[in-house]
Amino acid sequence: MATRSIPPKGEESPPPIATGEDYINSLRGRSLEVYLFGERVDEPVDHPVIRPSINAVAATYDLAISNPELATVMSPLTGERVSRFAHVAGSPEDLVQQNKMQRRLGQLTGTCFQRCVGMDAINALHSVTYEIDEAFDTGYHERFLQFVKMVQQRGFVIGGAMTDVKGDRSLPPHKQDDPDLFVHVSKRNDEGVWIRGAKAHQTGCINSHWLLVMPTMRLGADDRDFAIVGAVPVDAKGITYIYGRQSCDLRAMEDGNIDAGNAQYGGQEAMVVFDDVFIPWSHVFMDGEYDFAAMLVERFTCYHRRSYVCKSGVGDVLIGAAATAADYNGVENASHIKDKLVEMTHLNETIYSTGIASSHQASKMKSGVYLNDDMIANVCKHHVTKIPYEIGRLAQDIAGGLMVTAPSQKDLEHPEIGDVIRKYLRGRAGVDVEDRIRILRLIENMTLGRNAVGYLTESMHGAGSPQAQRIQIARQMQKEFKKELAKTLAGIDTGKGSGE
Amino acid sequence: MATRSIPPKGEESPPPIATGEDYINSLRGRSLEVYLFGERVDEPVDHPVIRPSINAVAATYDLAISNPELATVMSPLTGERVSRFAHVAGSPEDLVQQNKMQRRLGQLTGTCFQRCVGMDAINALHSVTYEIDEAFDTGYHERFLQFVKMVQQRGFVIGGAMTDVKGDRSLPPHKQDDPDLFVHVSKRNDEGVWIRGAKAHQTGCINSHWLLVMPTMRLGADDRDFAIVGAVPVDAKGITYIYGRQSCDLRAMEDGNIDAGNAQYGGQEAMVVFDDVFIPWSHVFMDGEYDFAAMLVERFTCYHRRSYVCKSGVGDVLIGAAATAADYNGVENASHIKDKLVEMTHLNETIYSTGIASSHQASKMKSGVYLNDDMIANVCKHHVTKIPYEIGRLAQDIAGGLMVTAPSQKDLEHPEIGDVIRKYLRGRAGVDVEDRIRILRLIENMTLGRNAVGYLTESMHGAGSPQAQRIQIARQMQKEFKKELAKTLAGIDTGKGSGE
Amino acid sequence: MATRSIPPKGEESPPPIATGEDYINSLRGRSLEVYLFGERVDEPVDHPVIRPSINAVAATYDLAISNPELATVMSPLTGERVSRFAHVAGSPEDLVQQNKMQRRLGQLTGTCFQRCVGMDAINALHSVTYEIDEAFDTGYHERFLQFVKMVQQRGFVIGGAMTDVKGDRSLPPHKQDDPDLFVHVSKRNDEGVWIRGAKAHQTGCINSHWLLVMPTMRLGADDRDFAIVGAVPVDAKGITYIYGRQSCDLRAMEDGNIDAGNAQYGGQEAMVVFDDVFIPWSHVFMDGEYDFAAMLVERFTCYHRRSYVCKSGVGDVLIGAAATAADYNGVENASHIKDKLVEMTHLNETIYSTGIASSHQASKMKSGVYLNDDMIANVCKHHVTKIPYEIGRLAQDIAGGLMVTAPSQKDLEHPEIGDVIRKYLRGRAGVDVEDRIRILRLIENMTLGRNAVGYLTESMHGAGSPQAQRIQIARQMQKEFKKELAKTLAGIDTGKGSGE
Amino acid sequence: MATRSIPPKGEESPPPIATGEDYINSLRGRSLEVYLFGERVDEPVDHPVIRPSINAVAATYDLAISNPELATVMSPLTGERVSRFAHVAGSPEDLVQQNKMQRRLGQLTGTCFQRCVGMDAINALHSVTYEIDEAFDTGYHERFLQFVKMVQQRGFVIGGAMTDVKGDRSLPPHKQDDPDLFVHVSKRNDEGVWIRGAKAHQTGCINSHWLLVMPTMRLGADDRDFAIVGAVPVDAKGITYIYGRQSCDLRAMEDGNIDAGNAQYGGQEAMVVFDDVFIPWSHVFMDGEYDFAAMLVERFTCYHRRSYVCKSGVGDVLIGAAATAADYNGVENASHIKDKLVEMTHLNETIYSTGIASSHQASKMKSGVYLNDDMIANVCKHHVTKIPYEIGRLAQDIAGGLMVTAPSQKDLEHPEIGDVIRKYLRGRAGVDVEDRIRILRLIENMTLGRNAVGYLTESMHGAGSPQAQRIQIARQMQKEFKKELAKTLAGIDTGKGSGE
Repeated sequence: MATRSIPPKGEESPPPIATGEDYINSLRGRSLEVYLFGERVDEPVDHPVIRPSINAVAATYDLAISNPELATVMSPLTGERVSRFAHVAGSPEDLVQQNKMQRRLGQLTGTCFQRCVGMDAINALHSVTYEIDEAFDTGYHERFLQFVKMVQQRGFVIGGAMTDVKGDRSLPPHKQDDPDLFVHVSKRNDEGVWIRGAKAHQTGCINSHWLLVMPTMRLGADDRDFAIVGAVPVDAKGITYIYGRQSCDLRAMEDGNIDAGNAQYGGQEAMVVFDDVFIPWSHVFMDGEYDFAAMLVERFTCYHRRSYVCKSGVGDVLIGAAATAADYNGVENASHIKDKLVEMTHLNETIYSTGIASSHQASKMKSGVYLNDDMIANVCKHHVTKIPYEIGRLAQDIAGGLMVTAPSQKDLEHPEIGDVIRKYLRGRAGVDVEDRIRILRLIENMTLGRNAVGYLTESMHGAGSPQAQRIQIARQMQKEFKKELAKTLAGIDTGKGSGE
Repeated sequence: MATRSIPPKGEESPPPIATGEDYINSLRGRSLEVYLFGERVDEPVDHPVIRPSINAVAATYDLAISNPELATVMSPLTGERVSRFAHVAGSPEDLVQQNKMQRRLGQLTGTCFQRCVGMDAINALHSVTYEIDEAFDTGYHERFLQFVKMVQQRGFVIGGAMTDVKGDRSLPPHKQDDPDLFVHVSKRNDEGVWIRGAKAHQTGCINSHWLLVMPTMRLGADDRDFAIVGAVPVDAKGITYIYGRQSCDLRAMEDGNIDAGNAQYGGQEAMVVFDDVFIPWSHVFMDGEYDFAAMLVERFTCYHRRSYVCKSGVGDVLIGAAATAADYNGVENASHIKDKLVEMTHLNETIYSTGIASSHQASKMKSGVYLNDDMIANVCKHHVTKIPYEIGRLAQDIAGGLMVTAPSQKDLEHPEIGDVIRKYLRGRAGVDVEDRIRILRLIENMTLGRNAVGYLTESMHGAGSPQAQRIQIARQMQKEFKKELAKTLAGIDTGKGSGE
Repeated sequence: MATRSIPPKGEESPPPIATGEDYINSLRGRSLEVYLFGERVDEPVDHPVIRPSINAVAATYDLAISNPELATVMSPLTGERVSRFAHVAGSPEDLVQQNKMQRRLGQLTGTCFQRCVGMDAINALHSVTYEIDEAFDTGYHERFLQFVKMVQQRGFVIGGAMTDVKGDRSLPPHKQDDPDLFVHVSKRNDEGVWIRGAKAHQTGCINSHWLLVMPTMRLGADDRDFAIVGAVPVDAKGITYIYGRQSCDLRAMEDGNIDAGNAQYGGQEAMVVFDDVFIPWSHVFMDGEYDFAAMLVERFTCYHRRSYVCKSGVGDVLIGAAATAADYNGVENASHIKDKLVEMTHLNETIYSTGIASSHQASKMKSGVYLNDDMIANVCKHHVTKIPYEIGRLAQDIAGGLMVTAPSQKDLEHPEIGDVIRKYLRGRAGVDVEDRIRILRLIENMTLGRNAVGYLTESMHGAGSPQAQRIQIARQMQKEFKKELAKTLAGIDTGKGSGE
Repeated sequence: MATRSIPPKGEESPPPIATGEDYINSLRGRSLEVYLFGERVDEPVDHPVIRPSINAVAATYDLAISNPELATVMSPLTGERVSRFAHVAGSPEDLVQQNKMQRRLGQLTGTCFQRCVGMDAINALHSVTYEIDEAFDTGYHERFLQFVKMVQQRGFVIGGAMTDVKGDRSLPPHKQDDPDLFVHVSKRNDEGVWIRGAKAHQTGCINSHWLLVMPTMRLGADDRDFAIVGAVPVDAKGITYIYGRQSCDLRAMEDGNIDAGNAQYGGQEAMVVFDDVFIPWSHVFMDGEYDFAAMLVERFTCYHRRSYVCKSGVGDVLIGAAATAADYNGVENASHIKDKLVEMTHLNETIYSTGIASSHQASKMKSGVYLNDDMIANVCKHHVTKIPYEIGRLAQDIAGGLMVTAPSQKDLEHPEIGDVIRKYLRGRAGVDVEDRIRILRLIENMTLGRNAVGYLTESMHGAGSPQAQRIQIARQMQKEFKKELAKTLAGIDTGKGSGE
């Protein structure tokens, strides 16, 4: 664990994690307590179900090497280029560039690469710690900047830990039967605080170096102990990870790389259980300021809802897969196929462009960080709860039924049956039957299999379920202003002007 | 195989297969050549991946016992009550009752119960064999009646074998490089014909007793050898089955019955390869009458597109699962939840009622069988290519993200981790955590897992992909009649009346 | 008024109104109090804004002549063929035939022909009067049968009067500031009752011979005086009609018949004000039985929601108009045009077939009348609140922008400008420019103009606004039954079987 | 006409048109040849049907006074603040600001304010004239800059004239029976060119000072004479305008201002006929460079498709009107009403944000002007062909049926009937019946009446019908790049990398 903590003042930082390979190595030997299929996992890096999710994070490092303009940025904190995922947005353009990087990584991995929660948490905490300090003369902001600086210097992956398991949703945290249903401070002393509770379905938590623990919702005065924000190393004592099953997860344990569809990359979500985990004061960024919990949640979700632009990159892959399947079937130029590809593209670009618009319309917070437009961020995310499902449906339409009835790789490799399959599953001339099956398996992977989890269901619920966006849209729709516009044009006396 | 052929005249038929248990026993010991995961399956009945699909067929027998009004009918051919699946529709009401039985079986199994292809093929062949005889003075219709009578008496399951693998879709059968890409007659003699080729993704083929082999599309004069219709026992010499992989199929091989979602029931699709399979003349119902191939395909798809009413029964299960998930989360009465359940129901009943309307508007064919309304059958099926996806999306919305991040059954049963899970994954008071996970696994099963194959992708492509319905709707839309209506009202001289 | 009342017993009925011409003559000279554009209308029959709505009703008589199978039926009450609009449904097939007649009349008029409210009210009152009698030993049912018999014999048009103006929607009738905001009994004596109040937007009221006054919603014990059902002649003393404006209504007052789009036919809705209008006891069918008000409303809306099948006939006209516009533009065979026509047809047939299914699934009431399936009736009507808008949108897409920028008929007939228009607004060879404009004006009429009122907005709100259907769907969705289905398949112990 | 031409060099420009009032005065006395309802219009400014469209343009001037930051900009050409509508975009932010101004004017007028065509044509011609010069050493760009400078200095409104009437759409211009079906050069001499032909449905043409005539589509070598771009004063000799009828246009001719819905503002489209109209060389910006026609059309539509952001401003009015109607009905807080307002807002903001994203992603052309992102512009416009229809449908849902059945203003003002109406059409307490009717008339105006023409049908066809956007999306979807992404992830050997 020592390798992940802040070095004593005056000491040199070790060299940052720079390449995908560095990153994968940095995860080894951490003795995490990870459970999967009823067993403790020895080394997550080598577990065939887990590894694809690690590869997806590694791709973010590799992109920083191959395209530094996109994936790194000059940090005012360190004076050096750092990962864009650890950067505090100093302009609307910084936010726009986040979106472009997200789309690109979606294209390269076809799945969730797990670093956006950390990025968005860093940006949200920048302004919130500043404003808590302003209100209560606390020192959170400076502590937080030190933490971010360390993260940038070391090249760490930051995971978030926000979504409490919640228990009875009709009750606030302090009224739950069991206080642990929301993460809370169980003990405090001069050195720091201890926290208890669990956070559900945390994206990429095991693949991170640090977790930023944050409250999950608006809190009241009686929820003071639940108003805790802090950074903990992933391998801190007392943390247990219970891995979430994904559709078709067992295919990763088979030999061969066809049936998995996307053998290299996958997502990761796990439950994180905190059993009295210690956080030193230097890593505590909120403790008891319950009236700032809502602000933190709202700013985080504002950033994060627009981060779902990544799904337009994943959508690019699925559109390409559908086009390839049509090509292999010899029907790429049928008018209805072309029209469906256009529809998929129209929808996919809607995700992208609403994200970009939200980022572009950012405004400067008191702390100096830029926050994107909240209304449009909600519009973006709300589209993400529908559009990938429709793109997936159209991809299945174009793919044809074989995507769910094709034989296994083992059949394809069987000495006799393999030939029969190759004889009968031919598409247009010049297409290898194996390639045809590969592209269908990719579509299966993205619409039913492991990456459907990220492309579909996580698109639905990540950063808030659909109704959360509708509530936020309702709040910001300026209804009274719009009523005035209408009354004025209808010739109804409103007692004021038109709002000019 | 002898047990499945027609007994010599004068001999008594053995007792019919009556119960689900009878049915399962009837499948044992047939020495079928079935390949799955690169291995020949010893006994399909006992294979954990295959068995759920057999259970689903067995449920059709059990329904005939528990609800004979719905699932059996008095047969004019035998003078006894027979399975409705083997019955020739003698009235519009017979077709309507098929739909009601289909919905009920969808409700009971939550998946495809695999008997509709046979039912629809029997009905289609009734009129087509009659009309071929009329045109060419052949004797197909009588032979076919004998076959149906035997099927009714013995209580057999009939599978269809229609969808050829097709090769290059821009070429007719006789122009393909390899003639085997469409099933065709490879040899004829006094006793019968031999056929070669393969049929892709055949629903329930292994679980059937007989297959009705039929051409897949309109044929021309040069495609004469491809115009073959006949009945073959499933265990005929020369047939090989290659089992299609399904999403999450491996979960059926795990211990426990939670993670499968619907452990008892599943669907089945396999590729059927005919390597010079013999059909005696008594079981040949078309041979060379290529100009009747289109009629057969159109009548079969007319019946079959409306048979997708079964999906409204499956939809009932998914609606119920979503409502249960909401209940377990304590949010069943939130207005947005209620509204989503209404939307799901509205859509689901649209499938059902378009099917019913098609069946009700049936007309009598020359042979006496009733054929449902083709326009509305296409409208029904076309809805089925979209509505289950939207119901599935809404079910995922209501379910919450845990449906794709819940831990495995093995974790739940782990001596320590199991307690942690039970502590933290509580919903509202009084709900067992295991039950909560069970209902989420069912939703996963139906929207991403094994039964998503049938509820989603098979809904898309079975009985013809969406574009096939659009073409058929275009053919039947009476465009010129509608143009006359419009011109008359617009005051344009049409040279005739309004069509009254 | 004498001509419209029941003749003294023993006297011969005058000959029934048989033809459209008879019907139009029957409306003349009634001295109705009708207001339009701030003036009392001398003779509605001759008012250019009103006449098209009368023509639409006249078309229902003409259809009875040209197609008696469809538009008339043998009445058990009179022993003669009578208008299907005045017939009590004695079988599911009677209800199905109503739908077929409705579609045909939609095709012939392109608008609302205003007779369905009466038909549906007659059918609803048949069973409700019977059940009130059963409960309270009243004599409503027999009175009502006498009324219906008279209506059948005389060939009258029956309008409904249900929708109260309602005032403050959060208060029940008896709590309104002004009791007149709901129609109620203002006085009773030995001869009958007097009613006061107003009914909003009553379809075809002025074109009817009698109005059936009915309560608008569920009533409580304190609303007793509002629980009044009775028949009043349209020209009864004390009734005032205030005509509703329709989009583009003034075009009916211009010379020429092009710009109106559909010059011959239109709909009609007016507010009906009852200023102490007398109803003799012989025409009172409910008085004070408040607990049957909800039953009446529910049965009426059950019939009426499925009556919106008429819109599929209107949709046929609009599809035909769009196809004609495409033809005139020379693009009828463009693949995107064909695809849009298919989409319009698919949607239009969805309306039709959900209506048919509801009628087909009718059940017999105690009084002998058949009532269609309520769930499916709501599904049908709910589609009608959306589908015509989408068909209209697609029609505008196909039509091209000229439909809203074409010059007036007067310009077309101008000696110089007319030639310029004819030179420049040519479509494909062989198409008369006037015909091209005529078809575009029809599309304008149906999507923006007079008949858009009926095809769009009335489709939205007639027989209950969308939310009313959603509430009814929620009530009937059998949620607990569906939850049981799901729990059983998920392996959750439900304490009972699967509902078989 | 002299007042609108460029003053001789050395002379002072007259003072610019600055206020809405100046603008209206500038239109008087021009002796335009305008036909409407079969008559030549004496003075368009005073015609009640035309005046609302003039008021909408006047509002653009008034906004420049009240909010100069939004509606004016410092011009590098003149060194002074000029109307943003006449400005050449020098940065992405300039394009974004156009969108913000468009939305604001949509909010203020509830209709089309007719100045975007000119703005977008100026920006498109800036780069195209530059690139023609580059290719052929012509002098168009400098001429064009002089023209733009004059327009900026004088404060003129520029209309476009692009959409030819086209005749047989399957033939190119030079193959038409009548060459006049596309505007073309009919004569050339030393002084200039003369043009003939007609442009259909030109927005705001009569309300402009100058028209920019441009070709309508890609041209070939034989279409050289059709490759003409030039500026002509609106009152040039030989131009005739034939006014397009709009839904409910006659209501503008009635007394009173209620029934029109939006009495003050409207749109305008007319056919412009050029009967040998002279253009001096100084105002010719393309003549015969047929291979640049496609570039001009594509750049113009690229700007213009994103200009439909104005519809989000009009949508704001309609959302406000629906919310007001709900408020007046006392149901503003019903959950389904709130949900519909959220849906309308979500959709409306989608239009806005896709427009903003397109503008933000602009790139610099060789001439220095910025051109917005074409893919996203097409996505934006494509949404505009659907979203306003759905917002309109939801507004009608919320409004209730009274919006199409309310009595006329004359009835409301009738001494007796007016009181009856006021008695019965009460909504919730405190709402004036007239106000209730006013807001419903506004919704009628925007969904069926005059401004539905702009909000719906023009949204469909302006800047290209839906299929035009689909074609453009298909061209730019980078299909091969996306296929590579998919193949790489599926493990198919593509012979190259992933495109990093």
